[in-house]
Amino acid sequence: MTGLADALTIEGEGALVMGHVHEGWDVFGIPHGGYLAALAGAAVLHGTDTPDLFSITVHYLRKAAVGPMRFDRTVVGGSRRFTTTQVTASQDGRPVLAIMASTGDRADLQGPRWGSLSDWDPAGSRLSPPAGAPEATFPSPAVAERLGLRMDLATVGFVTGDTSADASLRGVTADGPADQLTALLACDLTPPAVWNGMGREGWVPTVELTAHVRARPADGPLRIEASTRAVTDGFLEEDAVVHDATGQLVVQSRQLARWTAV
Amino acid sequence: MTGLADALTIEGEGALVMGHVHEGWDVFGIPHGGYLAALAGAAVLHGTDTPDLFSITVHYLRKAAVGPMRFDRTVVGGSRRFTTTQVTASQDGRPVLAIMASTGDRADLQGPRWGSLSDWDPAGSRLSPPAGAPEATFPSPAVAERLGLRMDLATVGFVTGDTSADASLRGVTADGPADQLTALLACDLTPPAVWNGMGREGWVPTVELTAHVRARPADGPLRIEASTRAVTDGFLEEDAVVHDATGQLVVQSRQLARWTAV
Repeated sequence: MTGLADALTIEGEGALVMGHVHEGWDVFGIPHGGYLAALAGAAVLHGTDTPDLFSITVHYLRKAAVGPMRFDRTVVGGSRRFTTTQVTASQDGRPVLAIMASTGDRADLQGPRWGSLSDWDPAGSRLSPPAGAPEATFPSPAVAERLGLRMDLATVGFVTGDTSADASLRGVTADGPADQLTALLACDLTPPAVWNGMGREGWVPTVELTAHVRARPADGPLRIEASTRAVTDGFLEEDAVVHDATGQLVVQSRQLARWTAV
Repeated sequence: MTGLADALTIEGEGALVMGHVHEGWDVFGIPHGGYLAALAGAAVLHGTDTPDLFSITVHYLRKAAVGPMRFDRTVVGGSRRFTTTQVTASQDGRPVLAIMASTGDRADLQGPRWGSLSDWDPAGSRLSPPAGAPEATFPSPAVAERLGLRMDLATVGFVTGDTSADASLRGVTADGPADQLTALLACDLTPPAVWNGMGREGWVPTVELTAHVRARPADGPLRIEASTRAVTDGFLEEDAVVHDATGQLVVQSRQLARWTAV
């Protein structure tokens, strides 16, 4: 529906596989970090017998460009449960992403359940029109339009310069199929939460993103909650949780990002 | 003072360097995950011209043992500001840790400051005797004794089976020298925070730990705050923040861990 699966195609096998950074998955011209994380996840999983990401870390070394991306994969080893892989992604011979992930099979996972990372229900919130809709009240990047992102209007103080609230944001994607790679993209889909604390006179490029995948999502809208609590020397964390339409936790992520004044 | 520096010695140069997992940095016989993360950090930094860790991720593949540890290092590349390195650590020819880190030099870092990750001041808390002291009220692993960990007694419900509180724990180390590797160890130093929610009938081995180093710590006690918010299918996050004696944020970490009933 969003066309994401077609934009995450990987070819080849073994140590070297090839992907392609597609057009239309960008933030005002720059390939989106969450999309690149999803592409990295696809490259890690491709052709293996471990269908599920458990933890994936991506370091962003330089801007990606639309075009082919080469992934050099090294299986470091594994335990009974997990396989751990290190990957470098390069374009035109230059490293763009450094990736490490542990994968496995969660089909028969059993274990206790306790606590919660969210009590938000979008049904109780006033939502913005979908990103890119004619009636949209603020500009959205192409990647947000692809997923039909709607923001909880109680959390978009940055639009009017109101920085009095917590630096947190909530949004929900359009109805549609969902899988772990969609959820991985979604954890980076909202505007920077820190804009609600410091205003939007800064760009916040990601240094590193780590995502824990906690479940295979059910199809339907994904609920995204992002927050930043501390900026120190211009560096900040951006935490996000993604829940599926059934309220199940799917992804918990954290980025280290760097405030860059514009 | 704690002897940590002597337990983090790295030898060699270039792609292959050697460390040693020392005795006395364990959790009831098993080398401590935070100590291993500090050793991994030392191995990443050794002999480079980048003195500071910014983000380090460690995947724990199998139990480490006291003895030599070999680190095979690959510099993936770097931006103007960061160098990114992938490392595998092995013992007796078997992979034990998979590591990825971005390093740089924070000496002249400048940037905005906003928000906070803590409002705790140990001076206002009733603290346990130091770990390992004759008057200690609960058993502590060797690594906690090394750092003289004292727990905020308001946060040790697990000792008496009181699981009514949030799954959070606070502690403070003894006075002494502090550096980024001590802080890295410290982010994993408390008992599992989830014990305050689910009781201590579980062991919580780390699958993956990512730590953001936010500052070079001042000498003095380190304040540690750890928490868990959600367990799903037996997997959980353990978040921790470490502040130095001046109240400065030094490390923010997150683990993916797995509940294992005992």
